[in-house]
Amino acid sequence: MRASIPDSSTICAVSTPAGQGGIAVIRVSGGEAVSACNGIFTPAAGKPLKDRLSHTVVFGVVRFPDGGAIDEVLATVFRAPHSYTGEDTVEISCHGSTFIQREILKLLLANGCRMALAGEFTQRAFLNGKLDLSQAEAVGDLIASSSEAAHRMAIRQMRGDFSNMLAQLREKLLHFAAMIELELDFGEEDVEFANREQLMSLAGNIESVMTRLSDSFATGNAIKNGIPVAIIGETNAGKSTLLNRLLHEDRAIVSDIHGTTRDAIEETITISGTLFRFSDTAGIRHTENEIEQLGIERTFRKMEEAVVILWVMDLTEPSRYHKEIEQKLAQMQEKKVIVVYNKIDKISGKQQTDTPLYRETVYISAKTGNGLEQLEVALIAAIPHFEENDIVVTNLRHYEALTHALHAIRQVIDGLQNGVSGDLLAQDIRECITYLGSITGQHIHAEDVLENIFKNFCIGK
Amino acid sequence: MRASIPDSSTICAVSTPAGQGGIAVIRVSGGEAVSACNGIFTPAAGKPLKDRLSHTVVFGVVRFPDGGAIDEVLATVFRAPHSYTGEDTVEISCHGSTFIQREILKLLLANGCRMALAGEFTQRAFLNGKLDLSQAEAVGDLIASSSEAAHRMAIRQMRGDFSNMLAQLREKLLHFAAMIELELDFGEEDVEFANREQLMSLAGNIESVMTRLSDSFATGNAIKNGIPVAIIGETNAGKSTLLNRLLHEDRAIVSDIHGTTRDAIEETITISGTLFRFSDTAGIRHTENEIEQLGIERTFRKMEEAVVILWVMDLTEPSRYHKEIEQKLAQMQEKKVIVVYNKIDKISGKQQTDTPLYRETVYISAKTGNGLEQLEVALIAAIPHFEENDIVVTNLRHYEALTHALHAIRQVIDGLQNGVSGDLLAQDIRECITYLGSITGQHIHAEDVLENIFKNFCIGK
Repeated sequence: MRASIPDSSTICAVSTPAGQGGIAVIRVSGGEAVSACNGIFTPAAGKPLKDRLSHTVVFGVVRFPDGGAIDEVLATVFRAPHSYTGEDTVEISCHGSTFIQREILKLLLANGCRMALAGEFTQRAFLNGKLDLSQAEAVGDLIASSSEAAHRMAIRQMRGDFSNMLAQLREKLLHFAAMIELELDFGEEDVEFANREQLMSLAGNIESVMTRLSDSFATGNAIKNGIPVAIIGETNAGKSTLLNRLLHEDRAIVSDIHGTTRDAIEETITISGTLFRFSDTAGIRHTENEIEQLGIERTFRKMEEAVVILWVMDLTEPSRYHKEIEQKLAQMQEKKVIVVYNKIDKISGKQQTDTPLYRETVYISAKTGNGLEQLEVALIAAIPHFEENDIVVTNLRHYEALTHALHAIRQVIDGLQNGVSGDLLAQDIRECITYLGSITGQHIHAEDVLENIFKNFCIGK
Repeated sequence: MRASIPDSSTICAVSTPAGQGGIAVIRVSGGEAVSACNGIFTPAAGKPLKDRLSHTVVFGVVRFPDGGAIDEVLATVFRAPHSYTGEDTVEISCHGSTFIQREILKLLLANGCRMALAGEFTQRAFLNGKLDLSQAEAVGDLIASSSEAAHRMAIRQMRGDFSNMLAQLREKLLHFAAMIELELDFGEEDVEFANREQLMSLAGNIESVMTRLSDSFATGNAIKNGIPVAIIGETNAGKSTLLNRLLHEDRAIVSDIHGTTRDAIEETITISGTLFRFSDTAGIRHTENEIEQLGIERTFRKMEEAVVILWVMDLTEPSRYHKEIEQKLAQMQEKKVIVVYNKIDKISGKQQTDTPLYRETVYISAKTGNGLEQLEVALIAAIPHFEENDIVVTNLRHYEALTHALHAIRQVIDGLQNGVSGDLLAQDIRECITYLGSITGQHIHAEDVLENIFKNFCIGK
């Protein structure tokens, strides 16, 4: 059971990754942080911990209750409000043995601290006004970011770029609300004080900014979790060889993501700082003169989930199911398709093919690695790019709040067009403001909502 | 290739455990540590890093070369000689994403640092006189300690208890040498100035202290790596059930150690703060009326490696190979043997057996867990115990040096008994002093020796 919020207890946890290492850091935060640590820590020289200034580091010893040394440590004091959480905080940097970490935590618990819940340090930072909610959520994304693109989105959100954009929208909405209310004040005179065209233009402006933000989620989410790429084609076109070739290049294989889609193991690869999630599909093939239905259905599903489709063709074999794939692609106009002609090592010169010329094409040899660089360039070019200052929504909760806010502002526009009364318009505006405010946490202090947001954090953050 | 020693370059490494976590710490040490970090770090307010006092923490931002933020971090400055290494040191505490850690290291490398080798921070601490060699080696043991007993040995060694003991021995040896040299000065007068009895008594005293230290290694090593316990007995006596029962109790299974002995997977368990390493042996069994030779040989080998032997007997079955096991045990007088009568759940009351009464016995049911507590008490009682202030040798290199020193002091005693001349005695004394000095590193600065000692450390320590 999660502790109730707000909770004035002093919390502690190991904040560094689990396991053995050179050093580990134990974080202690709350009103009693300094006195709890003062009780277990003997400085090698000078004043006790409780008399130290903020942002200073002290070398000393932590001892077992029987007097034996547990470890020589560094203790850093941060005085409220000048800490991550906004509370008094002590960070104990000890040797990174799991035994030492456990023993120091046991001492802290005996000295009145309790174990921190997942994300509780960041939650306190939010409750104490050090971060707004979207910034706090970005801390989790920042830690989980394994590619440069995902990292850049997360750090900008943590540093408040998204929050500032929302504050601007809020400004506009408040301005809008003020104009409506001005009209309401003069309501009985039955005049339309606020210029309807001016209101429409303002609402349209707000709607377009929110639509752009909302639309950015599809890509933002893909960048955060990896751009889904489906590798399709007939059997023996060289799809698996291509995937292996992409994997064995001189770059990190980030991880195998199991079970994110039903029956596939996907491979993730970072190319030029962007994470891609490749699905190798079953080759489309021929059973008793019919296209195997199961195989092609799976492949079509992968194509639907993908942002980019790599259509691998064997230059040395005529394509048999060209028409079926083209028919399917015709229903997916929004997908980026790259036609990959494989096996250039087996032919001399580029061979004529029957593929429509309007598609982007790359010639490669998955076997020798020839042409791989051009394929990577094409992949990077195929994904939506953002300007340095673009705000991108990456969080599902934010996207959902934006969707509600967007619905509300569209109600306003609809109302304006249909001559709805000012008080009804004002109600929709308020709804829109509330939804936007929920992103940064302006209206959220209810325990259940916060609990849900912070429980996915790691312990110690 | 390890860099040459001494090396004045500025080194950097992630000192916290590998992987993702709330925070990670990057350590930078060397003459250019502060200026290198100053170049990549912008404080949120106030003076640049290079103008900060020792032992102070500064909040700020590390940026990509293009100006985008990599992370908001805390930078702690330590000025030489008041740091772990004795050099200028900066610790950068960043968010624990592997991407951020890598990017910050890349920036440091671009700013003139190089990656630290395994153990290089501790090696520099030694070279700068912050720790002697036996203390430096204890840092590695401290981090690796997973049980309280191993931890207590390591921390005491790190804090210098062993070094102080060696210093006392050295004092005595120097006193001895002084007495011999006094005699040499008057050598031509052909009198024995130094009292032979007094010399014998002093040498005997030194020898006995060193013998005790040397003897402590067997147990010290066992405590550090786990006390080896062989579980032996006939097939179906319940050996594997007992091992599983020990493992599934409410305590941590530290790890499976593969391949430390030839053909066994061993299980390690911490009981009352001491690590035990249990080997389940093949049951001694019956093939064509002969004891299967291969099985019993393996079992005998395990018995020889063990400090404690658990001899499991089935209370419900008569023992068939009692005599063979007893014969073997007769050759192993130094082993602690605990006879474990199993399957008390299947009989009513304790049954009479033909086991000699002089052995320690415990009655258990491996199936129900009955009697397990008594067995654990017996196990803890069976291992050698140390007084709080006993010095225990745990390191093979120290043990080897002690063995050489012991050989030298025994030469001295032998020489005294056989009337060997003073100059020969003095030579053996010097050898003894040199070997003891090699433990704390008083005579070691040769690159190859140090390299060998520090290369088993983790990176970042």
